[in-house]
Amino acid sequence: MTAKTAMSEMTGTTTKRRAVLRGALGAAAGAGLVTAGTAENASAHEHADGPRIGILLYDGFSLLDPTGPAEVLSRLPGATVTMVAERPGPVRTDTGDVAVVAERSTAEADRFDVLLVPGAGERGTVGSINNPALLSWIRRVDRHTQWTTSVCTGSLILGAAGLLEGREATTYWASRDYLADYGATYVPRRYVRSGKFITAAGVSAGVDMALYLSAHLAGETVAQALQLAVEYDPHPPFDTGSPDKAGPELQELALRLLAESQT
Amino acid sequence: MTAKTAMSEMTGTTTKRRAVLRGALGAAAGAGLVTAGTAENASAHEHADGPRIGILLYDGFSLLDPTGPAEVLSRLPGATVTMVAERPGPVRTDTGDVAVVAERSTAEADRFDVLLVPGAGERGTVGSINNPALLSWIRRVDRHTQWTTSVCTGSLILGAAGLLEGREATTYWASRDYLADYGATYVPRRYVRSGKFITAAGVSAGVDMALYLSAHLAGETVAQALQLAVEYDPHPPFDTGSPDKAGPELQELALRLLAESQT
Repeated sequence: MTAKTAMSEMTGTTTKRRAVLRGALGAAAGAGLVTAGTAENASAHEHADGPRIGILLYDGFSLLDPTGPAEVLSRLPGATVTMVAERPGPVRTDTGDVAVVAERSTAEADRFDVLLVPGAGERGTVGSINNPALLSWIRRVDRHTQWTTSVCTGSLILGAAGLLEGREATTYWASRDYLADYGATYVPRRYVRSGKFITAAGVSAGVDMALYLSAHLAGETVAQALQLAVEYDPHPPFDTGSPDKAGPELQELALRLLAESQT
Repeated sequence: MTAKTAMSEMTGTTTKRRAVLRGALGAAAGAGLVTAGTAENASAHEHADGPRIGILLYDGFSLLDPTGPAEVLSRLPGATVTMVAERPGPVRTDTGDVAVVAERSTAEADRFDVLLVPGAGERGTVGSINNPALLSWIRRVDRHTQWTTSVCTGSLILGAAGLLEGREATTYWASRDYLADYGATYVPRRYVRSGKFITAAGVSAGVDMALYLSAHLAGETVAQALQLAVEYDPHPPFDTGSPDKAGPELQELALRLLAESQT
């Protein structure tokens, strides 16, 4: 139902507003669902029959890396998205400003249809690469996934876990030389699929990758509808989003701004 | 410093990895900063001299609406990003899957240079529109902001607070007919500026808006570098991100997927 058709069915203003918003924004129609506590709803989701998506969080991750894909993937029919970290509870980003809650610990959650490993600044990336328990968990989860994915320097973490040997992959533009350390070949694309592995380029590329993954999980029509659902019709004010387009001075400034913003 | 120049300075492998990642990913170089606890760093940020950015969270918000802009704006020189809600602590998204932590309560935080109000599904949007205390807080904060901004249906909340009367604005595509209820004129653009108000279209449009806002806060060169910092060189697999491009069938499916994903 579109906003227009919803509107044509309405009368009084309050009714109209609620009904149009329901049509337009698509909240659950049942009053029971609307008034139930969110924790119970989150639990109820776990028995849905869509893909179980696990997203790893770790101290110093970059905020958009997990949240962009989560926004898209959480709309897949029947999907559950679970944020996982070594310890449940708030996990803080590289800038120290924001924390996202890990709902489950790695000890209690290791079966997912999709695993997504986000990227980070140096502290978070090196911390994960040098964390054998975390790498072991990634390998354990990967044994049962349908898709194992990453955003930004998350591919270096997949690489450190030994999962990208002999594969094509991508990563953050400034970290591209690193994939070779793990036997992977860097491909300068927005996302790169190799078997069941899909790696995305830096930060915002996770949104593009999530749409591509959605097409594999639920078909192209659903993925196309999800692109509209998140109104992803990008028109940034500049065209400096890749190192080639930006040039060396902006590359240097970008890295300095990142350095200064991180804790 | 680019990854290439960083690499040319390195020797032993471990040193090389850490140093290249430092160069490439730009974490703080000082060991003290790297080892200090994140909470302390977050506090230290509050005395930085860049823009103080306040982002409102409320039950049922859409995850990407605040996190996309936060990823960009937190990299502005000296910026602090503070997530604020009526009660501090975890605030859950519309799907119930994910929670972001509000660091401050509205009672204790009402002075910001930039206010950003995210959007939500019906439950979160109507809940905020019908929350006089929240609307009053928005008006109070707006009195002192340099910029008051929104993403997606956040503009309806700004409208309900009485801030968009007589202004051009944008919102989520499916909610466009609603802006007129608040005396605003809908403009189908990625983001719309009217005076100190900047409203963004749905969900992912917040990233585009944040880059535009960054140019106003710190100059075009910094904003262009931030676009590269988050590698925002969009190449989604489809071209269905606006209602016109998607057509009526995908519009209906998008709204159904949203409805079914929300609690």
